[in-house]
Amino acid sequence: MENGILRSVKGTKDFMPQEQMIRNRIRRTLEGVFEAYGCKPLETPMIQYYDLLASKYGGGEEILKEVYRLSDQGERELALRYDLTVPLAKVVGMNPEMRLPFKRYEIGKVFRDGPVKPGRFREFIQCDVDIVGTSSMLAEAELISMAFASFQKLDLEVYVEVNNRKLLSGVLQELGVPEELSGDVMLSLDKLEKIGVDGVQEDLRERKVEESIVAAITSFLKSGALSLEQLTEQFSSSLVQEGAAELKQLFAYVQEAGVNGDVRFTPFLARGLGIYTGTVYEIFLQDRSISSSIGSGGRYDEIIGRFLGDGREYPAVGISFGLDVILTALAMLPAALEERAADVLVVPLGTEAASLALANQLRASGMKVELELTGKRLKKALDYANKEQIPFVAIYGENEASSGNIVIRDMRRGAEQVMPLDEMQQWLYSAQ
Amino acid sequence: MENGILRSVKGTKDFMPQEQMIRNRIRRTLEGVFEAYGCKPLETPMIQYYDLLASKYGGGEEILKEVYRLSDQGERELALRYDLTVPLAKVVGMNPEMRLPFKRYEIGKVFRDGPVKPGRFREFIQCDVDIVGTSSMLAEAELISMAFASFQKLDLEVYVEVNNRKLLSGVLQELGVPEELSGDVMLSLDKLEKIGVDGVQEDLRERKVEESIVAAITSFLKSGALSLEQLTEQFSSSLVQEGAAELKQLFAYVQEAGVNGDVRFTPFLARGLGIYTGTVYEIFLQDRSISSSIGSGGRYDEIIGRFLGDGREYPAVGISFGLDVILTALAMLPAALEERAADVLVVPLGTEAASLALANQLRASGMKVELELTGKRLKKALDYANKEQIPFVAIYGENEASSGNIVIRDMRRGAEQVMPLDEMQQWLYSAQ
Repeated sequence: MENGILRSVKGTKDFMPQEQMIRNRIRRTLEGVFEAYGCKPLETPMIQYYDLLASKYGGGEEILKEVYRLSDQGERELALRYDLTVPLAKVVGMNPEMRLPFKRYEIGKVFRDGPVKPGRFREFIQCDVDIVGTSSMLAEAELISMAFASFQKLDLEVYVEVNNRKLLSGVLQELGVPEELSGDVMLSLDKLEKIGVDGVQEDLRERKVEESIVAAITSFLKSGALSLEQLTEQFSSSLVQEGAAELKQLFAYVQEAGVNGDVRFTPFLARGLGIYTGTVYEIFLQDRSISSSIGSGGRYDEIIGRFLGDGREYPAVGISFGLDVILTALAMLPAALEERAADVLVVPLGTEAASLALANQLRASGMKVELELTGKRLKKALDYANKEQIPFVAIYGENEASSGNIVIRDMRRGAEQVMPLDEMQQWLYSAQ
Repeated sequence: MENGILRSVKGTKDFMPQEQMIRNRIRRTLEGVFEAYGCKPLETPMIQYYDLLASKYGGGEEILKEVYRLSDQGERELALRYDLTVPLAKVVGMNPEMRLPFKRYEIGKVFRDGPVKPGRFREFIQCDVDIVGTSSMLAEAELISMAFASFQKLDLEVYVEVNNRKLLSGVLQELGVPEELSGDVMLSLDKLEKIGVDGVQEDLRERKVEESIVAAITSFLKSGALSLEQLTEQFSSSLVQEGAAELKQLFAYVQEAGVNGDVRFTPFLARGLGIYTGTVYEIFLQDRSISSSIGSGGRYDEIIGRFLGDGREYPAVGISFGLDVILTALAMLPAALEERAADVLVVPLGTEAASLALANQLRASGMKVELELTGKRLKKALDYANKEQIPFVAIYGENEASSGNIVIRDMRRGAEQVMPLDEMQQWLYSAQ
């Protein structure tokens, strides 16, 4: 009758237990690593003033189209946050006494009324770490080290592509690319791996880049002299030298610290056009079974200061992981499917209270225990355990209870045995 | 310059790290207990269709005034969820193949554009467990047992007040209270403890309850025969007998299962007026240092079925904890202030990369380690550790590094010692 209303809004979904257990595992793993790195948790509101999100140093015009707006009974003009960075900037600005560097993590929902694709939602969870208050490349080295530690714990093999916006901008300047075209040219160059030098040449022409500049870029690409050393030899501007020095420092830190991960200098990685001022990086699965990045970030030294307009500088660098893209990656691994909600199902046969006591005893010892609550017959209860992949069923009948015994069924082997109640816990531990 | 926008919306706040660490501890404790009880996690969207939330079996008129409405680029009429129960009902309705009982937990933000008080926000986190698909009192017993287990882990002493709506309604019927006044009378009786029999009498008169009924209620209250046994003797309707039988069964389960907690039959506990059909309960701190309840719930056997209108029955019982009221309770305990973001601060003096390696080694062993990133001078770094209550500082200078040593400063004792690098980890473990 009312079934017409039983639907999810486009771009949202219910995460059912099997998926949500994996998402919880991802969240807890990330939280554990973030905290091992001394990051502090922050929780900012989802509802913010629209003016704050729309202020000119926020995410820019493009993102504003995707902002959900709302108002309250006080007729305030409000909006749902679209990222965790603007709320962080607000917190920094509202707490001038804050000790810097401020190394915070926040894992929470953000909202964007934008295009929906498989794995891309309108409300989704971001997992961000940002370090505000230091321009040392040691901060980048920490974040990259932290990223490897996170994915290692999740059993995902990844590599990190790293570049520096100063270096890239400097190179383009020296190739004669005018400021107003540099965004377009970056987008073209970003596709080099995919479309090759000829493809880039064509793409640049389509973007109305002047022929002499297209020629300069093409000849530069054809030279193949794209290593960090070669770039610093070919291009001499202070922008290039500064960007390259930062990268060299970062790579030295990562290497000398023995960070166990595959870090690749990627000269045309641009990471969007807006806020980044130095290092940028993207994290990919080694096997590229997901082609897009599964985490990314970079340095944005100017945004917070400009946003706050208090004349202070707030050098900052961050990294962001997408919970659901990691879910997608993990869901491709068979191991991820092994999450189960219960280790043992306790089935009372006329022994409800005693069974609750029994279940509580096992729970206190660290097991996940479901108590059969509906008075199901044994056959149905076993069927339930089977479907829920609960490996053990403790069948507690009145006869067994009065003789101090219990029946344990190993669902995987289909074998049942009677054992003294006080041996059960130890037995279940060894059998797991 | 832009400081005018640096403010939080009324009814929202930023949870700074010191508070957020405690909130995380609460969330993790609850998740751990919920999972030990075999509850499955579910995550429902915050954005829902307005029609769903406004449907007549939802939260009712009162709550609809407090719903935040919004729309998207597709001009859908949307709203932010105001609870976790309607989204659960939706999930049950959309998944007819779901195995029952469905015992799920969800911890997440809900939104209500209502009155703001200290500790009461317009976006706040609810922690809900519901069991859908059984009318056995064993379900209530499990939830109450789970509540005690949760608060015990949080070091909070609580008691639970329990009542049954059938019992209460039946008693009022037999006292001659007409259906349409029973809500008003319940509100009066709920205040008995606070305002006494005379107060209730006066309150009933103010609510225009007929004098003969006021007299009947007053004489009943004065009799003091309010135990479960006395009520079942005095009142004979099937409603009273059924409610009392449910309560007796529940108390028997709780007692026989050895649930270690203070459960009190509270004959006038009503828990709002709307959805509950049987058991209701509220959880209070033993010392009532917070006067309102810190958790509550009850049985609502009819709502999901009526809401879905599919002719099936969905008996259900739930419990809900307020994260921020628990935060308030914990913040009153001195122990709660001991949360710290880092166990060790590693200060590199010219040894950045080696210090990152050192920090990573300690992190891998399970410690929370902050690396000094800003090139602070030692005195300032120690000052920082002091203010952040980091108990140990590892000072890694070039001289120490070249001789395989490190300086460890115990901040609480103000004592420093040089030790071989490979003894540090063990030493820190013993010293913690």
